[in-house]
Amino acid sequence: MITSSTHPILTPQQIAELQRLLGSEKVLILPEERLVYSYDGSKQRSLPAAVAMPTATEDIVKTLQFAAEQKIPVYPRGAGTSLTGAAVPVYGGIVLTFTKMNRIVRIDADNLTATVEPGVITEELKQAALRHNLYYPPDPASAEFSTIGGNVAAGAGGLRGLKYGVTGDYVLSLEVVRMGGELLHFGAETMKSVTGYDVVKLLVGSEGTLAVFSQIILRLVPRPPCVTTILAVFDDDVTALETALKIVQKPLMPAALEFMDASAVDCAYRFTKKPFLNNVKGLLLIDFDGVRSQVEEDARVARELCLAANARHMIDASVDQEQKALWDIRRSLSPALYQLAPSKINQDICVPRSTMLQVLREIKELSARYQLTTVVFAHAGDGNFHVNFMFDEANRDEANRVDAAVRELFTLAIQHHGTLSGEHGIGTTKAPYLPIEYGKNEIALMRQLKAVWDPDNLLNPGKIFFSSDIP
Amino acid sequence: MITSSTHPILTPQQIAELQRLLGSEKVLILPEERLVYSYDGSKQRSLPAAVAMPTATEDIVKTLQFAAEQKIPVYPRGAGTSLTGAAVPVYGGIVLTFTKMNRIVRIDADNLTATVEPGVITEELKQAALRHNLYYPPDPASAEFSTIGGNVAAGAGGLRGLKYGVTGDYVLSLEVVRMGGELLHFGAETMKSVTGYDVVKLLVGSEGTLAVFSQIILRLVPRPPCVTTILAVFDDDVTALETALKIVQKPLMPAALEFMDASAVDCAYRFTKKPFLNNVKGLLLIDFDGVRSQVEEDARVARELCLAANARHMIDASVDQEQKALWDIRRSLSPALYQLAPSKINQDICVPRSTMLQVLREIKELSARYQLTTVVFAHAGDGNFHVNFMFDEANRDEANRVDAAVRELFTLAIQHHGTLSGEHGIGTTKAPYLPIEYGKNEIALMRQLKAVWDPDNLLNPGKIFFSSDIP
Repeated sequence: MITSSTHPILTPQQIAELQRLLGSEKVLILPEERLVYSYDGSKQRSLPAAVAMPTATEDIVKTLQFAAEQKIPVYPRGAGTSLTGAAVPVYGGIVLTFTKMNRIVRIDADNLTATVEPGVITEELKQAALRHNLYYPPDPASAEFSTIGGNVAAGAGGLRGLKYGVTGDYVLSLEVVRMGGELLHFGAETMKSVTGYDVVKLLVGSEGTLAVFSQIILRLVPRPPCVTTILAVFDDDVTALETALKIVQKPLMPAALEFMDASAVDCAYRFTKKPFLNNVKGLLLIDFDGVRSQVEEDARVARELCLAANARHMIDASVDQEQKALWDIRRSLSPALYQLAPSKINQDICVPRSTMLQVLREIKELSARYQLTTVVFAHAGDGNFHVNFMFDEANRDEANRVDAAVRELFTLAIQHHGTLSGEHGIGTTKAPYLPIEYGKNEIALMRQLKAVWDPDNLLNPGKIFFSSDIP
Repeated sequence: MITSSTHPILTPQQIAELQRLLGSEKVLILPEERLVYSYDGSKQRSLPAAVAMPTATEDIVKTLQFAAEQKIPVYPRGAGTSLTGAAVPVYGGIVLTFTKMNRIVRIDADNLTATVEPGVITEELKQAALRHNLYYPPDPASAEFSTIGGNVAAGAGGLRGLKYGVTGDYVLSLEVVRMGGELLHFGAETMKSVTGYDVVKLLVGSEGTLAVFSQIILRLVPRPPCVTTILAVFDDDVTALETALKIVQKPLMPAALEFMDASAVDCAYRFTKKPFLNNVKGLLLIDFDGVRSQVEEDARVARELCLAANARHMIDASVDQEQKALWDIRRSLSPALYQLAPSKINQDICVPRSTMLQVLREIKELSARYQLTTVVFAHAGDGNFHVNFMFDEANRDEANRVDAAVRELFTLAIQHHGTLSGEHGIGTTKAPYLPIEYGKNEIALMRQLKAVWDPDNLLNPGKIFFSSDIP
């Protein structure tokens, strides 16, 4: 068992041994270096004793051999964009960062696969695929910063889930290293494989708690020849969401279908100063992609639905640059939110689509009741809300109200047959709430699966499960 | 540990207790009744001591409580269409059949989900979805007989893998019962969920060795408004396969892209007597679906590619009945094969698409070298070959040559970065070959995952792993 006091630091002997094993240039030990690896997008914080920067699989093997022998916790880390604390070294120990394992090993255009090291930035893979006229669809909002390894560990979703699915749908094969240094390969380079258990899919979304990825083979798809973007703004957000639902019920299959509530649009307006966002109360941002004829027809139908819902204004963009400008409104949201308050808790509940209007109303009611500033946006096609409670941590009363609201939000999601997390995962921040969704027997089984991989609970301990003790 | 002699039969007391627990009408014990559940599509055979027919989850719970207490092996069974022995009760015990748990509980057209009991026949779900203008894409060739529970257990693929993926891509949530009777729920009714480990995907393709499914929630998609089918016949099969690969490289995304080699077409000709199959040496059967404009354009391009490859003849079908007639040629293949020889071993290796031509040549060479009658067809878009070795079991020398050829086929698949099984799974028939694809550490880890669920190895023992001993 690891408690927060067991491994606050490594001994000088342990540091020296790690340096000897990897080469001292691959081990960061200065406080100012370690500080950089002490937090993630969740703003949780805990200082690691050392940071290891493997340059090859062999370095990962050595680190995990050493750490297992010495019972030192290891925290694998992508770009630290986790919003749930998944990358925070809560028990100190060694952070394993893949900054120097960021090669795209191969793009196989014949077989539509990409072989990458875990540290590759998602956007760089997307660009590399485009150069082969191929497409890597998963598109977390963090794609310009986050890594493929982190995306796989998180089971990252993103803006294109409805049509294209999520990261896990594109992972064919994984080379991984277990705590203790055992190197394992699961999956195949083929489009299908049912040889033995689907261990690849068990590892996807396991938040770095089961094994460390050293190489990842991903599936690519042909690049869609045509993309069009529609932005539509409305006088109220319920109407905007209603229109989004009508679009998917039609049925159209947009590549992306983003919803922003009144507060979200207001935030974006104040940040971007785009005149067409002024005094707007709801927004949809819609992409269609595919062959031109279908894209044009679908876009026409979607525009009609927006008009029928009295959209105040619509913008069409069929050129890359213009599309990017529209999408920047959405992508600017996360930073823009901090205009409202210094702290943010962003919860990504996912609910059955048919409940979304009711859930939006209940979120508004809940926010009013707790007197909170709440900004809601959603991947509307997936039923995936992002509920941002904005507050000031220094205001203890407000922080308490946020805590209560978060618990109520999760309960509300489960009541509507939803889930705690559509794409951010559990990490540390949602670990206390896991029992709202899963019973003790399900959690016990998940812990037993963890114990198979990492019996001493040394790999990313403190995540997913509230107590890091293996029962 | 279970050996084949441990549980050849249940004691009269055990039978009586099972009858008392479930009601005697749900327990089959007559030899002629048990015989029906002694084999599957693999033609392996082993007589169960009893057959339990649960009508509700509670019956599954009771059976698995009782069997765990009494250390009786339990064999869950769908329709017994497994080609790998996955449904054969190799150590006797109790077969659990879902014939009476075959209700489509709910089709939720708003959320595009179907909730079903495991015994629902796949084709019945497909038809039920169509009545809501929805579509359940996974399409194993056995769809008219096989069950959803069996499909999920097998991780079944089928004809529509390239565009639509496989069964596992449509499973959102599972209610399962563990050996011992514990009832567990994993997954969510939502389009996405990353709460805890993805246990659902671990259960998909686990061949009934981890837990018994009692309820399954599946994702549906909107029904494609338009489908067109093209049949093209060629003077040689290498050209036919080459053309298939050109179609996907174009890139087009057919809903199905089936290849048949010279022997396969010959077989189909002799069975169906369709004049256009006479003296044909290679065949492609292609479906495009989606909106009309795209389907028409894609079909035009595909036809051009076939013509450029000197297709001898092409048939287009845009009407349901005509399409079915063309697809019956493909679906008739399995029975048609038995014209050639009384026994068949059908191996479903899957390889990277770029290696398919070379692999086809090597299969032909291997078949000639072992002097075997071999029929090859393929889901060409997926790289998934079905290699059928036809032989007479009574001819020991021929049977031995088949054994040697099978091993060489698997080795060949792995050399080309392929996999032992694209969709049939491992069962008993491929269990001895598992080490060709996975090393001992990977297999040990899979066995440990099995032990988490079923420490006494009582659930479908003898499958996937060659020896049923848990190490």
